[in-house]
Amino acid sequence: MNKVQRTERVVRIKISNVPGAFGKIANVIGQNEGNLGDIKLVRMGKKYVTRDITVYTKNLLYFNKIIEEIGQIQGIKVINHFDNILREHEGGLIEVKSKVKIDNVEKYEKYYMPGMSAIAKSINEDRDKIYDYTNIGNTIGLISNGSTMLDFDDPNEEATYSVLESRAAVINELTNISAIPIVLSTKDKDSIVKTIKNIYKSFGMIIFEDLNSEDSFTIESELSELGIPVVDTNKTCNGIVTLAGLINISELNSVDLSKSKVGFLGYGSKASGINMLLKAYGIKERIGFDIREYSKKRMQVENIEIKNSINELMEEADIVIATSRKAGLIKFGMVKKGQILIMLSKPKPEIEPEIAIKAGARYATDGKIISPLLVIPGLVKGCLLSRAKKLTFNMMLAAAEKLADLAVEDSVLPGIFDKGIHEEVCNVVRQAAIEDGVACLEEIDIEDEVPKDIEDIFESIKGMDLWTEA
Amino acid sequence: MNKVQRTERVVRIKISNVPGAFGKIANVIGQNEGNLGDIKLVRMGKKYVTRDITVYTKNLLYFNKIIEEIGQIQGIKVINHFDNILREHEGGLIEVKSKVKIDNVEKYEKYYMPGMSAIAKSINEDRDKIYDYTNIGNTIGLISNGSTMLDFDDPNEEATYSVLESRAAVINELTNISAIPIVLSTKDKDSIVKTIKNIYKSFGMIIFEDLNSEDSFTIESELSELGIPVVDTNKTCNGIVTLAGLINISELNSVDLSKSKVGFLGYGSKASGINMLLKAYGIKERIGFDIREYSKKRMQVENIEIKNSINELMEEADIVIATSRKAGLIKFGMVKKGQILIMLSKPKPEIEPEIAIKAGARYATDGKIISPLLVIPGLVKGCLLSRAKKLTFNMMLAAAEKLADLAVEDSVLPGIFDKGIHEEVCNVVRQAAIEDGVACLEEIDIEDEVPKDIEDIFESIKGMDLWTEA
Repeated sequence: MNKVQRTERVVRIKISNVPGAFGKIANVIGQNEGNLGDIKLVRMGKKYVTRDITVYTKNLLYFNKIIEEIGQIQGIKVINHFDNILREHEGGLIEVKSKVKIDNVEKYEKYYMPGMSAIAKSINEDRDKIYDYTNIGNTIGLISNGSTMLDFDDPNEEATYSVLESRAAVINELTNISAIPIVLSTKDKDSIVKTIKNIYKSFGMIIFEDLNSEDSFTIESELSELGIPVVDTNKTCNGIVTLAGLINISELNSVDLSKSKVGFLGYGSKASGINMLLKAYGIKERIGFDIREYSKKRMQVENIEIKNSINELMEEADIVIATSRKAGLIKFGMVKKGQILIMLSKPKPEIEPEIAIKAGARYATDGKIISPLLVIPGLVKGCLLSRAKKLTFNMMLAAAEKLADLAVEDSVLPGIFDKGIHEEVCNVVRQAAIEDGVACLEEIDIEDEVPKDIEDIFESIKGMDLWTEA
Repeated sequence: MNKVQRTERVVRIKISNVPGAFGKIANVIGQNEGNLGDIKLVRMGKKYVTRDITVYTKNLLYFNKIIEEIGQIQGIKVINHFDNILREHEGGLIEVKSKVKIDNVEKYEKYYMPGMSAIAKSINEDRDKIYDYTNIGNTIGLISNGSTMLDFDDPNEEATYSVLESRAAVINELTNISAIPIVLSTKDKDSIVKTIKNIYKSFGMIIFEDLNSEDSFTIESELSELGIPVVDTNKTCNGIVTLAGLINISELNSVDLSKSKVGFLGYGSKASGINMLLKAYGIKERIGFDIREYSKKRMQVENIEIKNSINELMEEADIVIATSRKAGLIKFGMVKKGQILIMLSKPKPEIEPEIAIKAGARYATDGKIISPLLVIPGLVKGCLLSRAKKLTFNMMLAAAEKLADLAVEDSVLPGIFDKGIHEEVCNVVRQAAIEDGVACLEEIDIEDEVPKDIEDIFESIKGMDLWTEA
């Protein structure tokens, strides 16, 4: 762990193939208080050897000095140096794999021609069979046009692809779901809707990432009847996780959530998603402030009492949910005694949590705790396993309550790698889908009695072995 | 292999958990000249056991008799029975997998947050970096609206998905490429073009499957400048494989291909793709017949001499390439002595090859030998490895000539599973892309001298070990 806290960089060098050259490199590193890490062979020639050397240093200043000094050694050329994170992402994080071995004509006939004709025919006669004979029931489209991605002003689509790939990798690791990154080269909402309508049959579910707030309302509503769930992460998943966090924050701080007045500072799609969930959870008093016209309209539609200033909102709210994207918007004097502040703007919150506490807040946090990845894997798996046609409020509330429940002791939310959390969320979502009548899966005929004793199973299998030999 | 020729079916039965029941099943199968295959446990209860039993019989009549008799055994219930091909496709053939292990916070930070910000930032500054840090350079979109899929009249989109999945599985098995099935829910060509323009940045290359002939011309031309290769399998890949076959057919039958007159019976996109390649290969005399208006226009544009009747075409052509989709269109008397007939219509050819031979043809074959999968894997890999912006004639011709070259002795084409064929095709395509200047990959700085002697490598490594310990 000592190494991790140091600066880790990789240097690619071309070394003359004469003894002693490498010793000089080691000297330079040692003299600058650095350490040598992995040394990898990149290319081997008669005259030169190219190697990647990992170097640990106190900080970048030391590292740069090392680079400079290495460059001055005779017979050595520094080709490049890079961050190890880049190297770890080389070649990308996901791949599409065949689940079956197709290495001879017999298997080709089974899995391709004529085998696939039998499958296609079966599905052509009964569309639902697609869930039995393809992987679509375990496949989601992870779709974005990158409009609100990271903190870039106007990220290019290639950058968007890399972010989606990272998300797909994490989702796959947590739940084994196949997530396919689809980058949209359009920011026009009608064009987005048309495109999705033309490709949605490639997925069992669609997750939108980083959609523009204003358009997300239209897009979500126009795609609500496709027959598969279409979910905006920013809105729905942040909503679920925020509610889950809020349930525990209230409890830990002895606040009655149902009787609290919640104030939204900023009202884009993230706030709208949270409001939707808070309302469904039974929180009646919800107020908001935003200067944007479409936000004011949304607040009217979604029964938020509109305030005329930040001050007014801060004075009235027991709980403040800030999504303004404006660092430092909340001043010290605006914080009300005993107030709870959840600030979801990135990279900087509306007020630093420590300052808010000093100003009298009972609890304050920035957006680091609210990761949509806490809920996406379980939510998606629950939808897919129940073959849900859409996502209902009960499914979302069930996920939020389960997440709150899974937090250990005095923590606000569980960790993404906590054992079993995604399965538990999956189960309650699946159950809620069945209860709400949006599940398309016929329930499997489960026998009333399951043997409790492993001996029972051995007994039966023992009998079977005799039979099969008859 | 004996078993393969028999009817293989799987019966799912629920058996009372009392000894002797299974023996009765075995008796019934034996008495009907059947054989027991695999027996799999599906579910185990206190009162019942559910099992899948594979049964081999002479034919379906025997099988049905077995099912009937098993159903009459006390304590046994036949739940279902199915073809093994369906079972082999259960759950589908492909999946998206994470290439890296993300099972703790440290890895999460590396591969997701903040790791992916570094990657996204790097790509945002230099778009080409997407090929270094994501899998997109190894990913193709396998896109279809299923309009000419299999022999279904109007296949539904779900059936199309299953076919694409099979193709993706085979492509992955042969070349390790990630192929993503995308089903289009539109047959309108403008809508297809717009949709692809909105999603093409999700792929390193696009392969169209089973597009409507008439529209494929427009679609291909409108998507030709995206900066990634867009290839219509039906047109381009069938064209390449047909030319490869034709090169060998001519040689084996002592016909001078360059001086032959080639006649197209039917002129859709498949014929157009073949014509394109034959023309590039240097075959000057090309004639055709089709009753469709758009086909006549295409022939005019593509320098095909239009004939007024099938008879006229059959009389003049040395080589006939039939893609009419009309079984039995060529009558016995139409075949010219010494003619070569390649009939690509499925499922039935224009004339059965044996009959054509009897009628005097020198050589005749149906479409079974022309599988686009002979060229797709190598072609795609060659394009991806060279990061080709588009597919050029030289790349296609190189693939066709290489394929012809790879056929063994007196065979017309190699087999899909022949060792190394896809790598060989890949290499010539890649080389041609570089020669044509459409490759975007900076050539790796390869040192003039590569050590021929393994001792050289050991020598250097030995030295390195000493150094690293210094």
